[in-house]
Formats: sequence, structure tokens, C-alpha cells
Amino acid sequence: MSTYVLVHGAWHTGRELAPVAALIEAAGHQVFTPTIKGNGAGDAKTVGLAEAIESIADSVLENDLEDVVLAGHSYGGMVITGVADELPDRIRRLVYWNAFVPNSGESLVDMLPPELARLFESMAAERRDGSIVLPFPIWREAFINDADLDTAQRAYRALNPHPIRTLTDKISLKRNPAEMALGKSYLNCTDDTSMPHQYPWHPRLSQKLGLFRLVQVPGSHELCFSNPARLARALMDAGRD
Amino acid sequence: MSTYVLVHGAWHTGRELAPVAALIEAAGHQVFTPTIKGNGAGDAKTVGLAEAIESIADSVLENDLEDVVLAGHSYGGMVITGVADELPDRIRRLVYWNAFVPNSGESLVDMLPPELARLFESMAAERRDGSIVLPFPIWREAFINDADLDTAQRAYRALNPHPIRTLTDKISLKRNPAEMALGKSYLNCTDDTSMPHQYPWHPRLSQKLGLFRLVQVPGSHELCFSNPARLARALMDAGRD
Amino acid sequence: MSTYVLVHGAWHTGRELAPVAALIEAAGHQVFTPTIKGNGAGDAKTVGLAEAIESIADSVLENDLEDVVLAGHSYGGMVITGVADELPDRIRRLVYWNAFVPNSGESLVDMLPPELARLFESMAAERRDGSIVLPFPIWREAFINDADLDTAQRAYRALNPHPIRTLTDKISLKRNPAEMALGKSYLNCTDDTSMPHQYPWHPRLSQKLGLFRLVQVPGSHELCFSNPARLARALMDAGRD
Repeated sequence: MSTYVLVHGAWHTGRELAPVAALIEAAGHQVFTPTIKGNGAGDAKTVGLAEAIESIADSVLENDLEDVVLAGHSYGGMVITGVADELPDRIRRLVYWNAFVPNSGESLVDMLPPELARLFESMAAERRDGSIVLPFPIWREAFINDADLDTAQRAYRALNPHPIRTLTDKISLKRNPAEMALGKSYLNCTDDTSMPHQYPWHPRLSQKLGLFRLVQVPGSHELCFSNPARLARALMDAGRD
Repeated sequence: MSTYVLVHGAWHTGRELAPVAALIEAAGHQVFTPTIKGNGAGDAKTVGLAEAIESIADSVLENDLEDVVLAGHSYGGMVITGVADELPDRIRRLVYWNAFVPNSGESLVDMLPPELARLFESMAAERRDGSIVLPFPIWREAFINDADLDTAQRAYRALNPHPIRTLTDKISLKRNPAEMALGKSYLNCTDDTSMPHQYPWHPRLSQKLGLFRLVQVPGSHELCFSNPARLARALMDAGRD
Repeated sequence: MSTYVLVHGAWHTGRELAPVAALIEAAGHQVFTPTIKGNGAGDAKTVGLAEAIESIADSVLENDLEDVVLAGHSYGGMVITGVADELPDRIRRLVYWNAFVPNSGESLVDMLPPELARLFESMAAERRDGSIVLPFPIWREAFINDADLDTAQRAYRALNPHPIRTLTDKISLKRNPAEMALGKSYLNCTDDTSMPHQYPWHPRLSQKLGLFRLVQVPGSHELCFSNPARLARALMDAGRD
């Protein structure tokens, strides 16, 4: 019986994780899927990383959660790292699910391959409202390569423009992840090409955790849509003691 | 309902892909498995790469195929790249199945690790009729490592001597694969050691495609013999929109 | 109908491989699981690598085994390499299961990433009786990441202090593994992080075998505890002709 907080990635909200949460709850756990500030309905797209982190820390405090298994997907890795740095006594284990692992002073964009960093910049320059939108062809081929077209299209319609400052702001930490005295897991979906495999999630970013537990399953970056049951099982394998 | 053209690899003919084709047809698609010139019964072993490509382009034109999912295995990657360069309007998507991805001016041998390139040269020097034959121990251990000995032996008996010029000729393209405005997928069998894993198929060669969809399944280079059903499913996952 | 000799890794004995052996026997094979000298009840912890190898060679000779499929796990790779060098006529195939592959003049520690080599040294310095013990957190997170806590704890209780000299002694071989005229397989559990994945078992160590057969399955370094049935199947796939 654990308490899971699942923190979504860029362009997503907590709502898309509801099917996964339901499966983890069915196994007897308590699950929260808060939406990060900047991705909620009506949120300003000028939100920065510190506010984004604060919104999830607030959610942990407001619900007075303890012994939390705090899982972050992709950009959510920035957020859970910041929350754990701020509230170490409330966290039992961090689970990075194909997620960014920042050291103090790094931004998400610092961990992108150069061509993706440039793409993000040019997307932001085009929209000029502080947000970026992922083009459908990239989504379909590189993010949700394991789903059929229907699932890919349906999932794409659920996305929202993402505040670019949360990706370019440097994180400020008292402790880097390797020094945090918490359980740490890395959940790696082996067909995830949102980071090209010559610039992979694991072990390139996972190794920044120090001692950690690896859990791997087949699947794309968007396993939450393509196979929620497999994802729920993997999150529990990653989150248990 | 799509039209698949499956292009075999070196030493093979289209016939060995019949069981896979039957499974894809059973799912409602149309499937062709032409034999590349140089591998057919009675073909001269002096055939070069341009003629090999031409023979598959001719097969597409003779059958007046459109919207083709054109899949190539191993050496077949050279051939489908050449066909797509010549007939871009007839191709919907290219599927590279543990296949070579050439840029203009490259030969297949240019993409081999040095020790394999030397082995191919020495095999060609021994036979002196323009063809090379794969020794059974290499076939059994490095090409069809996931099958039992019986399957490995039966499959080996189906092979034919391969025209070396198709492997050493440089391809000439108007557009490199990354610039082709087509859907592109890379199907990677994760236990395929026909390319040693320190010199892997993916992402070493797949990254030359630009934006592409990755599909991965367990299995050796010769999944067509060891698990046709898994291969058929993977080709359809790679070939769908 | 083959004869398997399964050689355990550091901190283990042959006893922990009994469930795997039973499954291989049930498939019709003969299986031996000797305990390496230095890991048996009451063995001196000052045993070195040559004595360790000798104890398994003796076991092969005493049982007059021929045509042996000799499989080694982890440190067991040092031992089977030494046995095969000494008794090549009795061995049909070597199976390295996430195992070290030494060339003549190398120790196990020479193949560790620098941080692990330092950890082993400091562990040895602390105990000062010639043996090292693996701390539970490392065992749980990096060795048996695919099991539940109960299995991890139960398995940990079965371990014994390991003689450090068997890890620091250089092996002396007449022939390096690549030159041995034997069948060779590498069984790689893809979630094994006992070697960090930026310093992996495969292909970093497997490529020292020359021509070899790769078999891969999901699972941690300790698949013998987390999934004996999958391990037994994989050992038979690796060990067959």
C-alpha cells in the first residue's frame, strides 16, 4: 500500500494518466495525478520551471502526502527532482520514466541532442506566445511509434501547448540527484525514440542518479496511451521497495 | 488494406518470404515478394547493384503498384532505397528491416565493420565466379542464433550464392534517404548479430533516415525462418500509417 | 540430451542453481552444479583464481564428463574460461551468462568500471579476512532489480563472503577465448545493471569471444532467483548445437 504521485510530461496534463492511475489503484495503492502549472486549462504559457515545480510541491503538501513514490515522465523528471530537493522527507522513492535527470544548473534543453534543441527554439520563435506545439509527424513517428494511427490521433488531440520557459530555465538544487538519500528507479521504455537512440535516455541520463534500479519494458515514449496496463505494472515494479 | 512489396536480403530469394507474405495477406493486405536479379534460379552472378535495383523497380511498374509499403531486409535496404529514388510517387512508406541505409555514393560494403568487409573480400577471392557463400558456422551462430539446429540447416539449404558486385557497387541517388518525402520505418530485431552489436544496425544506420518510426522485436537476423508470425506482425506495425 | 555444468557467480554456491538445474533436467539433460572452491561451507577465503578453476576442472574429471556445455555466471566466466583452456577436449560449448570473458593476463577486476573496482577494494580493506560482502542496497537495486523485496531478501541470505583473490588474480591461458575451437554463446539479461549499462556486459565483453551466439532475455543479473524457468529456457537455447 503505497502513495503514488504521477507527474506528466510536456504537452500533457494529469488527466491523460487517469487510466494508468486506475490500474495502480486497483492493485491497492493511492494515486494522485496533478497537472503541472502551465499545462492546466487557462494557465498562462509564460510559466517558468520554478513555478512548475512549486505547483507539484504544493499539491504534495496540500494533500499532506508522506512516503510518496514520486514518478515523473519526460519533462516531469525536472519537476520531481525539484520537488524531492524541496521536500526530501516526504518522498520515499523517485521514479524517472523516460525522464530528464538534471543536476543543479541544468535546463531540460541542455540535455537535448543539438538538433532537437534547435527544433524547440525554432518552434518557440514561430508561435511567439511562450509556448511550443509538437508537430503531428514527429509525434506519430518518434513519440508514439508503437500505437495505431487512431490512438496516435486521439492522443494528439489531448495535448496542450507547452510553456517553453519550463524547458529552458536552469534548475537550482541543494543536492544533485546522485546525492539524494532516497530510493531511485529509472523506467526505460526500450522503443522510445523521442530521444534518438544515439543520444539515449538510458544510460546517458539514468547514470546521473547514482545507485538506481532499472526497469525496462517494450514501448514508445507514450506508453500511457499505447499500453496503460504495461505501464502501470512497470511503475509498480519501479516503485516498490 | 495496403500493398506490401517485401524485398529479400543477400543469399535469399522472394520464396523464403512466402510464409510471412501469407500472414500479411491473411490480415487483408496485398503482398508481393519478387526475387532480385542475381538471386533467381539461373541468374548470372555478375549482376551489379543498378541491375538489381532495376529488377525490383520493373516489378513495381509491371504490376502497376501504387501507394506501396516497400520493405527491404538487410541488402534489400540498398535495393528499396534505389527503387524509392526512382519511383517516389509509387511509394507510401519504406520499411528497413535490419537493412542497410545508403547515402548516394555508398556501397553496402562501406557500411560493414572492417573485419566483415575483409571476410567478404576473401570469400569472393576464393570462389572467383563473382559470388560469395556464407559459411554455415557464421550463419548458425550470428545470423540465425534464435532457431534450433534443424531450422538453421533447413534455411541454409534454401540460400543461393550472392553476386558480390551488388555489395561493392556504389549506389547513385538523386536524394539521400533523409531527404525523401516518404514515410520511413526501421524494424530492428534486437538479437540480430549479423552486424556485431559494437557496430549495430540501429541506431548507426537507422539514423540516416531522418525522421523515422522504430519498431523493435526480439529475434535474430533471420526472423523470417525462426518466427514468421512475429515478423509479419512487426512489418505491419512498421508499415501502417 | 546434453551434459550441462552450471558454474555460479561470486557470493553464490551451486545450491542456488538447483531450481534451474531441475528444469533443464526435466527437458532431458544431465546437469551438474558444483560449488567453486572458496565459496563452499568452511572453505578458506584466501583461495585464489587458479585453485578456483582447478576445483571445477576436478569436478569435470571426477565425474568423467564429456561433450560438456559449460556455463558460467558472472565471475563464473573466469572459471569456465580456465577450465576450457585446460580441458578443451571435454567441452562442447561455453555459455557465458552475463559473465566475464578474460584474455590471458587479465583479472576480473581489470574488466570492472573504475568505480566498481574501487568499491571492491574498499570492501576488501574493511573486512581484512580476504573476503568481500555485497551491501544489500547494491544487491537490491543493481543486481536483483526485477524481483520483489521478499525474493531479494531471501536470495541475499543465501550469499556467502567471496574470496577477493579470485577477483584480483590474473588468469593464465594457453589460448584466449576467441582462439578456442569450441562453440561459444553469450546469454545477456537485458536489465542486468550489475555492470552499469555505459560499461555493459554485451557487447563490451562478449566481443572477446570471436564468433559467438547471442541469446538475450529480459531480466536482472540474478534471473536464477527472479525467473528460473526463463533462465533454464535461455541456457538451453544458448547451449544447444
